[in-house]
Amino acid sequence: MNTSFDSLQTPCLILHQSRFDANVTRLYEKCKVHKTAIRPHLKTAKSVALAKRMQRAPMTGITVSTLHEAEYFYNAGFNDILYAVTIAPNKIERAVTLATKCPSLILLIDNVTVFKIFDRFVQGIKAEHQFNIRLMIEIDVDGHRAGLLPNEEELLALAQSIVESRNFTFCGLMTHAGESYTCQTPVDLQQHAKQEVERMQEAKRFLQQHDIKCPVLSIGSTPTANAYENLDEIDEIRAGVFVFYDLVMTNIGVCTIDDIALGVLSTVISHKKSHNRVIIDAGGLALSKDRGTASQKADFGYGLLIDALTWIPIGQLVVNQANQEHGVVYLQNTEQFSNLPVGAKVIVLPNHACMTAAAHSEYHVFEDGRIIDTISRINGW
Amino acid sequence: MNTSFDSLQTPCLILHQSRFDANVTRLYEKCKVHKTAIRPHLKTAKSVALAKRMQRAPMTGITVSTLHEAEYFYNAGFNDILYAVTIAPNKIERAVTLATKCPSLILLIDNVTVFKIFDRFVQGIKAEHQFNIRLMIEIDVDGHRAGLLPNEEELLALAQSIVESRNFTFCGLMTHAGESYTCQTPVDLQQHAKQEVERMQEAKRFLQQHDIKCPVLSIGSTPTANAYENLDEIDEIRAGVFVFYDLVMTNIGVCTIDDIALGVLSTVISHKKSHNRVIIDAGGLALSKDRGTASQKADFGYGLLIDALTWIPIGQLVVNQANQEHGVVYLQNTEQFSNLPVGAKVIVLPNHACMTAAAHSEYHVFEDGRIIDTISRINGW
Repeated sequence: MNTSFDSLQTPCLILHQSRFDANVTRLYEKCKVHKTAIRPHLKTAKSVALAKRMQRAPMTGITVSTLHEAEYFYNAGFNDILYAVTIAPNKIERAVTLATKCPSLILLIDNVTVFKIFDRFVQGIKAEHQFNIRLMIEIDVDGHRAGLLPNEEELLALAQSIVESRNFTFCGLMTHAGESYTCQTPVDLQQHAKQEVERMQEAKRFLQQHDIKCPVLSIGSTPTANAYENLDEIDEIRAGVFVFYDLVMTNIGVCTIDDIALGVLSTVISHKKSHNRVIIDAGGLALSKDRGTASQKADFGYGLLIDALTWIPIGQLVVNQANQEHGVVYLQNTEQFSNLPVGAKVIVLPNHACMTAAAHSEYHVFEDGRIIDTISRINGW
Repeated sequence: MNTSFDSLQTPCLILHQSRFDANVTRLYEKCKVHKTAIRPHLKTAKSVALAKRMQRAPMTGITVSTLHEAEYFYNAGFNDILYAVTIAPNKIERAVTLATKCPSLILLIDNVTVFKIFDRFVQGIKAEHQFNIRLMIEIDVDGHRAGLLPNEEELLALAQSIVESRNFTFCGLMTHAGESYTCQTPVDLQQHAKQEVERMQEAKRFLQQHDIKCPVLSIGSTPTANAYENLDEIDEIRAGVFVFYDLVMTNIGVCTIDDIALGVLSTVISHKKSHNRVIIDAGGLALSKDRGTASQKADFGYGLLIDALTWIPIGQLVVNQANQEHGVVYLQNTEQFSNLPVGAKVIVLPNHACMTAAAHSEYHVFEDGRIIDTISRINGW
């Protein structure tokens, strides 16, 4: 074990810097080939230092999942920000406060009800502030969660309302192909990616038929971002977890275990010889309770154990049971006790990087067998 | 909707104060009947304000799950602290630093290997500091995770080593009956509670036979704490989630839904009429991905929806799907759209209060239909 690990309090979050860099480069190169911009979703990284590390062509702006993230990145110098959750009535005032300082902030909407509330609110403060709010409409391409269908009447009504209001600028259409997380094969993925693109083209044409110009088509999800073949008319890709990848993504087939750039450093705290188990100090709080791999082809429990220095899996050991501050690892044979003495450090690769990262307030940066830096991240709303 | 909710950013954590108080009182009264002390486990609440609200007889000390919690509560004036995770070699130095300021700190151990490391460490600094470290031994009463069996040789060897070392004071035996979380009926629970007590009595006798006096027997878990019948020789009970309760505890049968004192306030952000779904702004990060009720008699998805003012369930609606910042609620009928207009506030009761609370940095205190206070909590290690 490298001595630099010894200074870390376990459990803590480790970022494998060269894997992170390689993951970013790989998707950026793909976007360059397709001649699309990329607007990384920073809901996973939530770190200014990491966002700056990603800041090069074809990255244009950034995507965030909370207003807290939007404010945090704006305060660090980022201006072209898409807040990619449909705006709630009780978040309008806070969003507008940010938009007055950051006019390139783009907000998202998917229904006329909230638009009317929003329009009245902006109208009410128009005398004080001379600005337009930039809005995109969320499209549903796969029935996963929010958004309007590519050809439904409310889409047209909403787009028309935005275009006609003097308080807003219509910036285009966005979607998240969230259902792609259930894909099992490369063919499934390509099909899903194709459907995502085509439904967005369809929505754009639907609006064009009614003389509404759609400046931007923004699409994305880490699974589909790796599977696009034709991106005609698509202006930008959004993806988030691709910077780290995780075990869910390994099962979907868009990365290998050797691409995963995030893990939780943990210490073996007890041997339970009567049960052939080892106990580590990373439990449900440090790993998250996300069991995303439970329904996939390989079930990794609460995460896969790897060697902390080499990042090579330790047999096929996983965290089988996660209490709040205890992770219980069921050994495959008694010889494994000697590879995992009490006090040994291991890293646990996450099922779902977004959830695991959110349990921590900083990344310890691993490079060439050493911890070279500690960088902060944010949480909360 | 009471106006005081409007000032809150959703999602956020709400504490139902009168339910919290009632939950505390109920278990405290039970302990009084049994003439045992209670040492509440603050891993769930993680709040000085809440700990002080619980500070009355028969509460003696407190239990914590991390050294960060131990330091936090010590700095707020708590002295009698049990750090109830078996000490890891890399945490010894930090624990000893706290013990030099807080001599009544009790640490936990379950193996001779770490004890030897610990003993050497304390011996090495003994010249500077004149003090003994207080140690308890963890006993395994149900094969759940860590701890030594009540009659195994290593228990005797470890207890003898502690007693013989001039660096430590042996404080007794503790256990967590974690397997009680799988109980399905009151009879199961009583059986499990009885087993917990008897195994600890057995361990105490085993040590006594070898002339080792065991000053304290400390037991507990929220399920068994509600089911003890005979507590002969048991000195203190530990429990944590009982202050809030949650849906997992409802299924185990130790509380009702009307006892649950913790929820996540959320806003309806979209109607997905084509799918008969409502989308709220509490997703996996705000609720946690704990699916503890999935294997129980009633599966509450990612949490049960209740009215934010009355705390009465809204039909049988649950959060069926949790993305990072989206909760998707499948409606039972289309009429429910009108009860949950876009912008409406709902509260989601948690599957597992410990995990849900950990996603938040403060509690908004609800009493008599209003938010009367905001109090902080800690996270991390």
